[in-house]
Amino acid sequence: MEFPKENFSEWYNEVVEAAGLVDKRYPVKGMHVWRPYGWKIMQNIDNFFREIFTRYGHDEVNFPLLIPETEFQKEAEHIRGFEDEVFWVTHGGLDELDVKLILRPTSETAMYPMFSLWIRSHADLPLKIFQIVNIFRYETKQTRTFIRMREVHFFEAHTAHRTYEEAEEQIKEDIEIWKQIAKKLALPYRIVKKADWDKFPGAVYSLGVETIMPSGRTLQIATFHQYGQNFSKPYEIKYLKEDGEHEYAHQTTFGMSERLLGAIVGIHGDDRGLIIPPEIAPIQVVIVPIVGSKKEEVLEESRRIRDELLREGIRVHLDDRDNYTPGYKFYDWELRGVPLRLEIGPRDMEKNQVVLVRRDTREKIPAKREEYVARIKELLGEIQENLYARAEEEMAKKIKEVSSIDDIGDVQGVAAVPWCGSEECGHEIEDRTEKKIIGVPVDVKKKGRCVICGKETDTVAFVAKPY
Amino acid sequence: MEFPKENFSEWYNEVVEAAGLVDKRYPVKGMHVWRPYGWKIMQNIDNFFREIFTRYGHDEVNFPLLIPETEFQKEAEHIRGFEDEVFWVTHGGLDELDVKLILRPTSETAMYPMFSLWIRSHADLPLKIFQIVNIFRYETKQTRTFIRMREVHFFEAHTAHRTYEEAEEQIKEDIEIWKQIAKKLALPYRIVKKADWDKFPGAVYSLGVETIMPSGRTLQIATFHQYGQNFSKPYEIKYLKEDGEHEYAHQTTFGMSERLLGAIVGIHGDDRGLIIPPEIAPIQVVIVPIVGSKKEEVLEESRRIRDELLREGIRVHLDDRDNYTPGYKFYDWELRGVPLRLEIGPRDMEKNQVVLVRRDTREKIPAKREEYVARIKELLGEIQENLYARAEEEMAKKIKEVSSIDDIGDVQGVAAVPWCGSEECGHEIEDRTEKKIIGVPVDVKKKGRCVICGKETDTVAFVAKPY
Repeated sequence: MEFPKENFSEWYNEVVEAAGLVDKRYPVKGMHVWRPYGWKIMQNIDNFFREIFTRYGHDEVNFPLLIPETEFQKEAEHIRGFEDEVFWVTHGGLDELDVKLILRPTSETAMYPMFSLWIRSHADLPLKIFQIVNIFRYETKQTRTFIRMREVHFFEAHTAHRTYEEAEEQIKEDIEIWKQIAKKLALPYRIVKKADWDKFPGAVYSLGVETIMPSGRTLQIATFHQYGQNFSKPYEIKYLKEDGEHEYAHQTTFGMSERLLGAIVGIHGDDRGLIIPPEIAPIQVVIVPIVGSKKEEVLEESRRIRDELLREGIRVHLDDRDNYTPGYKFYDWELRGVPLRLEIGPRDMEKNQVVLVRRDTREKIPAKREEYVARIKELLGEIQENLYARAEEEMAKKIKEVSSIDDIGDVQGVAAVPWCGSEECGHEIEDRTEKKIIGVPVDVKKKGRCVICGKETDTVAFVAKPY
Repeated sequence: MEFPKENFSEWYNEVVEAAGLVDKRYPVKGMHVWRPYGWKIMQNIDNFFREIFTRYGHDEVNFPLLIPETEFQKEAEHIRGFEDEVFWVTHGGLDELDVKLILRPTSETAMYPMFSLWIRSHADLPLKIFQIVNIFRYETKQTRTFIRMREVHFFEAHTAHRTYEEAEEQIKEDIEIWKQIAKKLALPYRIVKKADWDKFPGAVYSLGVETIMPSGRTLQIATFHQYGQNFSKPYEIKYLKEDGEHEYAHQTTFGMSERLLGAIVGIHGDDRGLIIPPEIAPIQVVIVPIVGSKKEEVLEESRRIRDELLREGIRVHLDDRDNYTPGYKFYDWELRGVPLRLEIGPRDMEKNQVVLVRRDTREKIPAKREEYVARIKELLGEIQENLYARAEEEMAKKIKEVSSIDDIGDVQGVAAVPWCGSEECGHEIEDRTEKKIIGVPVDVKKKGRCVICGKETDTVAFVAKPY
């Protein structure tokens, strides 16, 4: 059985289950069961987040899931942005609750009442924390594994600073951190500034990290928000300055979710299934013994190889299942996206070699026993880099410069369109193309004329169909 | 400031906040914010769970939080046991939900509909999974950090087997696993079989792991349940046997929670604050430089020591804060329960030594620079063992054999009481003493006469006030 990626949407929906990431049969819409293999990949990603954010001076915390209606309503724009899409807890046992509770859709309104207690003086700043939790959104649109869910595995970092400039520095640091995450996950991206009508509810401005799926639709996989004092004022997050005056803090957030795994699945996978970047693969090398007539010898050699690789810190699995053919095992591990397969049989043993097979290129590489460990390490690095490079190349191909409104419709991906920046022209672009302005790329300036009003501009809008 | 442990309840409530484990000011009853230090300890415990349960053949999964009312109601006893204490989600946005959802109070009713899909044949058994999640109980009693909360950090392992006997073997394995956890956390315990009226709703029988807090009240810190076919029948968890017949699976669970941290706080702490067992301490050794007149030299030496200890895999922190005295730092790290302090000053440098101070005994131990790493490793092991041994000794003292109903009231801890085993006498013991039968210790048989009916018996009941 193959998984033709041509019909991407169908391919995606099938492969997330077939590869053992999730089970979608859970009887609540938009909530899936994470199976062991999927959860392990997500945990490898989470653990990298823990490592890198700690390295950059963040502390991990864990806030309650439930937020009282009264706290939730303090920031007016924020509540307007979320009120239609939160789940409400109204009863405990048989009692109606005095104050209704919401399931967090994000944690600003849970955290900031505490920030106002924690932050007293300039010495308490910057405050940099993060948490990895489940969040909930009452999505009414069609749901899709990892991409649009009602329960979402979520990462959120929240910071508070003395000045707007220090908050801006934090966002620069966030971008630095993101670059390392992108490399680890081999995910290509462009950073855009969201249009004003599309920013996070309560933010001064929002940056989105956008990637493009094989369907040509964009997927927002991380966001950085500058809040300025928009939350610190209603939540009374004040600090005593060195000059004795009180000042409201300036805040930022950095958000990511299981969408990252959705992007990995969609961008790297092929007709045989997933391809998991070696850096986060639960199994980096799978050993498939091809025992022939020398079962015991080959199995013994396979175990020796496994132990050698374990000692080298490589995540290795020996598939010594008796009741499956090597062919079936190849199929199975290719579907699950293990980046490197090691085959060993009697003839290889005679030749004092193993055969390595790359999941990304399917290339077969014989390696002598004396050098196979070094070769594996090299190949894992090469696969990681190749996945990233070829995904970036694919992404770049899907971004097309367009100078007329009529050409936007044909673009299977992102149309880069001159735009004067006005809300009026922005909405007209969206209405006439039935696409969205997903934002303005932060590092692109290009002279042109707004496709609506014709005004000269050096601003480019990315126009696409987002997930 | 000291924390007199004499008034245990007050001590406990203060120290969990003062030591930076939680912030209780979150504006929902029974839901606290985990601060970085508390969360790190809990994560060290969680990661040990991941390691040991994986080693024993369990896979980690993650199920949705929300359970449809319709699934929740399938096992009659189970729903009766929980219906008064679940939180209900009734609305999504402004819509009333067609099927109300509960926040999981435990995950049987979320998992078992999926088990019935996953389990087809005997080859699918045993199925052994676990998850680490937040659960919710609408507690109406007084809440207490880690011990009785409305949001609980929870560990649950669920297994399915071919036969009742195989499920019994699983429970033996659970006890083996528990013994290793107890050693890691330095927690003394007794395992009891719960009285029939006190078992888990839906279980054939329940075992509780009980410890005793300094207040004399017992705390249940783990449970193992034998479900037999009580859930597999309503949830249709059937498998095809080798003989071609269908049979319902036999199931067990193993549950633990943040209560373990509550027990660690309560049992090991003293008037100076926490004492965290070295095996799970986020910081095992804190270096406090006493710079005197040689600031640069002492700080440089401190950094050298830190780097040496890091290389040895010891979790070490150098407290080089400028604006605090060594005395303040001693106080601070003692409060947080760091098991070993390393002091270094100009005179120590002259003598080519460091001074080690044990948190558990407050003993000061000079160690020569050539041997201090080995000495630290030894001492961390000794502290771990000492904490466990002295806690076990304290616990044993709090269990008193009593042969008359009138003597039970005076026992500050557990009264071990002869009991005929009948429900009638059991309830009378509870009514007359205003205590509870917390269970029958599984490894104690002792001839005596039931304190109510006078019948000869070799069954002993543990009678106490539980948390």
